[in-house]
Amino acid sequence: MHTVPENILDKLTYGFYIATTRAKGEDLDTREKDYVAAGTVSWVMQSSFEPPMVTMAIQKDSDLNETIGKAYRFAINVLGKDDRDMINDFAKDSSVDGQKINGYSFLNGMKTDSPILEKCLGYMECEVTDIIKTDGDHVLFIGKVVNHELREPEAMPLHEWETSKHYGGIV
Amino acid sequence: MHTVPENILDKLTYGFYIATTRAKGEDLDTREKDYVAAGTVSWVMQSSFEPPMVTMAIQKDSDLNETIGKAYRFAINVLGKDDRDMINDFAKDSSVDGQKINGYSFLNGMKTDSPILEKCLGYMECEVTDIIKTDGDHVLFIGKVVNHELREPEAMPLHEWETSKHYGGIV
Repeated sequence: MHTVPENILDKLTYGFYIATTRAKGEDLDTREKDYVAAGTVSWVMQSSFEPPMVTMAIQKDSDLNETIGKAYRFAINVLGKDDRDMINDFAKDSSVDGQKINGYSFLNGMKTDSPILEKCLGYMECEVTDIIKTDGDHVLFIGKVVNHELREPEAMPLHEWETSKHYGGIV
Repeated sequence: MHTVPENILDKLTYGFYIATTRAKGEDLDTREKDYVAAGTVSWVMQSSFEPPMVTMAIQKDSDLNETIGKAYRFAINVLGKDDRDMINDFAKDSSVDGQKINGYSFLNGMKTDSPILEKCLGYMECEVTDIIKTDGDHVLFIGKVVNHELREPEAMPLHEWETSKHYGGIV
């Protein structure tokens, strides 16, 4: 379980998600082929009912930030209780082999071409409407949900308080 | 416990918070005295480590939105496991009586003058750096954390999955 938090920011509650995206080769400066990025994220929340929108904070210095900035679209794959291993497996650099990322099978999202991981509870595909750069060390991506699927309605998502992982606090 | 969700947006995980703010009388069009607003919110997340920042989504058509938009500062009070009653008590219109809101005692935040509820696990005071209006039905307030206190380091926050309340999904 959690170590004792040091400040109140450690008491905010999050789930665990794998954010994915695919930038087309022609949109990239340095790569000829499509480029896929994926990573574990916690700072995700809904931010509108109608239309359904989500907001996600991504480290400025990251592949995900750079790639979503080119692709202007992303997917959020929601981790369930049985998906705990994925937190670590996607906390490192991503390695794509055919239709697998870091060993996990994926399909291509119908609306955004973002990788959709087969193992998760479900996913949402988003088109970026705003990219907000603040004074902070993360960038905010605001996206409209253009496609979504709930595969396991009864299954509970994995949330921070049942793991030893926590992304938050003050450095 | 939760009813079975209808879509994947219902599987995002949040905590419960009371957002508060105080606008000075001189900044308001219609009121001579200071105006305090408070309400239950779930769509809150950290969005930077350095400097520490948070992002919060607030219904467009609400007192909180209007008042934070004038005050440019707010506080987030974090609910603990014993604070479940506060979810409903702050879901309605706020009523201020001396140093009490909806029956709960508060102090005035040292940095932002926002009401700090005595009963919560702790709080953070924030100065607004950006207000993001999207096509959606909520406004995003991005704030720098300028003061914070963790009163109960060992106590666990209340999170959605242990209540029957859920703020999310598709309308």
